[in-house]
Amino acid sequence: MPYLPSADLAPRVLDGDTRAIARLLTRAESGVEEARSTLDTMFARAGRAHVVGITGVPGSGKSTLVAKLAAAVRRNGRKIAIVAVDPSSPFSGGSILGDRIRMSDLFGDPGVFVRSMATRGALGGLAKGTLEAVDVLDAAGFDMVVIETVGVGQDEVEVARAAHTTVVVSAPGLGDDIQAIKAGILEIADIHAVSKCDRPDANRTIADLKNMLALGLTRLDRKAASSSTVPHASDARSRDAPGYAESNHDLAAWRPPVIATSSIRDEGVQRLLDAIDGHRAALEKSGDIDARRAAIAERRLLAAGEAMLREQFARHRDGKLASLLEQLRERTVSPNAAARQLLHELHIGDDR
Amino acid sequence: MPYLPSADLAPRVLDGDTRAIARLLTRAESGVEEARSTLDTMFARAGRAHVVGITGVPGSGKSTLVAKLAAAVRRNGRKIAIVAVDPSSPFSGGSILGDRIRMSDLFGDPGVFVRSMATRGALGGLAKGTLEAVDVLDAAGFDMVVIETVGVGQDEVEVARAAHTTVVVSAPGLGDDIQAIKAGILEIADIHAVSKCDRPDANRTIADLKNMLALGLTRLDRKAASSSTVPHASDARSRDAPGYAESNHDLAAWRPPVIATSSIRDEGVQRLLDAIDGHRAALEKSGDIDARRAAIAERRLLAAGEAMLREQFARHRDGKLASLLEQLRERTVSPNAAARQLLHELHIGDDR
Repeated sequence: MPYLPSADLAPRVLDGDTRAIARLLTRAESGVEEARSTLDTMFARAGRAHVVGITGVPGSGKSTLVAKLAAAVRRNGRKIAIVAVDPSSPFSGGSILGDRIRMSDLFGDPGVFVRSMATRGALGGLAKGTLEAVDVLDAAGFDMVVIETVGVGQDEVEVARAAHTTVVVSAPGLGDDIQAIKAGILEIADIHAVSKCDRPDANRTIADLKNMLALGLTRLDRKAASSSTVPHASDARSRDAPGYAESNHDLAAWRPPVIATSSIRDEGVQRLLDAIDGHRAALEKSGDIDARRAAIAERRLLAAGEAMLREQFARHRDGKLASLLEQLRERTVSPNAAARQLLHELHIGDDR
Repeated sequence: MPYLPSADLAPRVLDGDTRAIARLLTRAESGVEEARSTLDTMFARAGRAHVVGITGVPGSGKSTLVAKLAAAVRRNGRKIAIVAVDPSSPFSGGSILGDRIRMSDLFGDPGVFVRSMATRGALGGLAKGTLEAVDVLDAAGFDMVVIETVGVGQDEVEVARAAHTTVVVSAPGLGDDIQAIKAGILEIADIHAVSKCDRPDANRTIADLKNMLALGLTRLDRKAASSSTVPHASDARSRDAPGYAESNHDLAAWRPPVIATSSIRDEGVQRLLDAIDGHRAALEKSGDIDARRAAIAERRLLAAGEAMLREQFARHRDGKLASLLEQLRERTVSPNAAARQLLHELHIGDDR
């Protein structure tokens, strides 16, 4: 296929043409300037898909579960796209072969689209490309767009928070370190899936999870305050009073279910899909979907602003920012003072 | 102890007073405005410590190894501080108990300081607080400051890159998912430590690692280009031509050693310390320490600029940014256009 301008790819993408989608995603991922206005169009045409974040610690079997979920969505007559965010090299842009292999059962079905996104070297660069990919797939007519992440780093939490519904996958038999890390992502779950429930120790994992949730339910006040994207850094009590409480009041109405699944026995997957659909329906019914959309818009705006700041930084690093960097290296200016100067140099006024 | 202004804590911190250090770190972590100028002072007074990033996947035993390393540093007559970046809740600010317990052997020794930093809800918020903590500990006279992270998320890679020397810890017997993730962080290592070498399968891990490194060494060109912090997002070839190549030319001179360790048998830890010291000496000798410092300064400036952008965003979210957010929610403006408007609203001109 010859090189097509992104604007010419657009109608094909909106038509669901798999190859056109793949090409536009590549341009989104590498931040090609030429694709920008087309990606803007995709954003404008998006908004219909159910965006589902699925996350879990390494070894939780979430890729396999996602593949099973995709099959269930297809049996249901819907189209599904999966964006797998790989914690692979920030340099090579490679992706994990394993994920692709596990997805291979689904290859050849135009109602399933799987894309691995490599993590990028830039702070926050990940989120922007991933969110643009979700727009493209949404606009291309997929009913459900899954963002699959490895839930350990903060990036992954951020990406998962960009979803309407977040599923956290737990598995029996993981080590202490892993379980401890898991605790950090339990709070973002709308739905808990326990994988590998064919194993005898799975009951223990389910019981532990339910206990943790029961403890958490006694502290709804904290959960209600949990959706802050932006701490008020100038406020000493910022972590206790994040100020975003209104956008997650739906958490009080929805009690995260724990769904036992087994990919080997093909059990529990339809129940998981039902829970995902049920969560979306609950959001719609309560009107809390609006609060989710508002929170997603805030995250989106800030991510785009930061990406633009980084571009400006890169453009002027060896030019008008060079002496500032030199001062910082010599510690004759502080990072805070340098940041003020940076924003000033880039015509950003400090408007306090 | 009554509430002391940060400026009054400063002389005590510079004197190495553990309680004063702990209090200033708490203020750095929560972004207290009042502490800012004191933190600037700390930055100005810092620059002597050897900053070592130690990272590894969950289950790699890196916390135990760090504790052993700390003991070795102490036997060597030097002071060491450890900043453990926990992938714990973005909401509760809690930290992993396990890490603290493993460190408890070292409690009571004023030449060792251990601090867990919780991850924050804000994109990039982690790095700023962590780097300020490193300044404080550096200024307080610790000879070595270790930043311990879980090496899966991009945040952790970023934090590790803020170090002079980065150690990646691998362990035998981890699952496929974990090994695949590990591949992503191998490239940032100045030194490889293999933990749990009392296990029979450790030889296999060491051999695998050496093989991967041998393959990597045939592609020095890619490694040399690997230190980009800021992709040129407007450049289609940004991932192939990051433009930071000059700042990591030291990689060609230093060949990352693979150090076998066993925390149970207390083996290999002194060799690890020797390798860390050796890497610093090599950087000094070749002059490449300047390139590292320059790269750290760039990262630092960008992180501070982003933090300032987030503050401005939080300040005006419900005010002059409200209608922009509304438009974004309605998809009547694209994220890119909204970002331009955001920067404009915050008096940031688009100066192309």
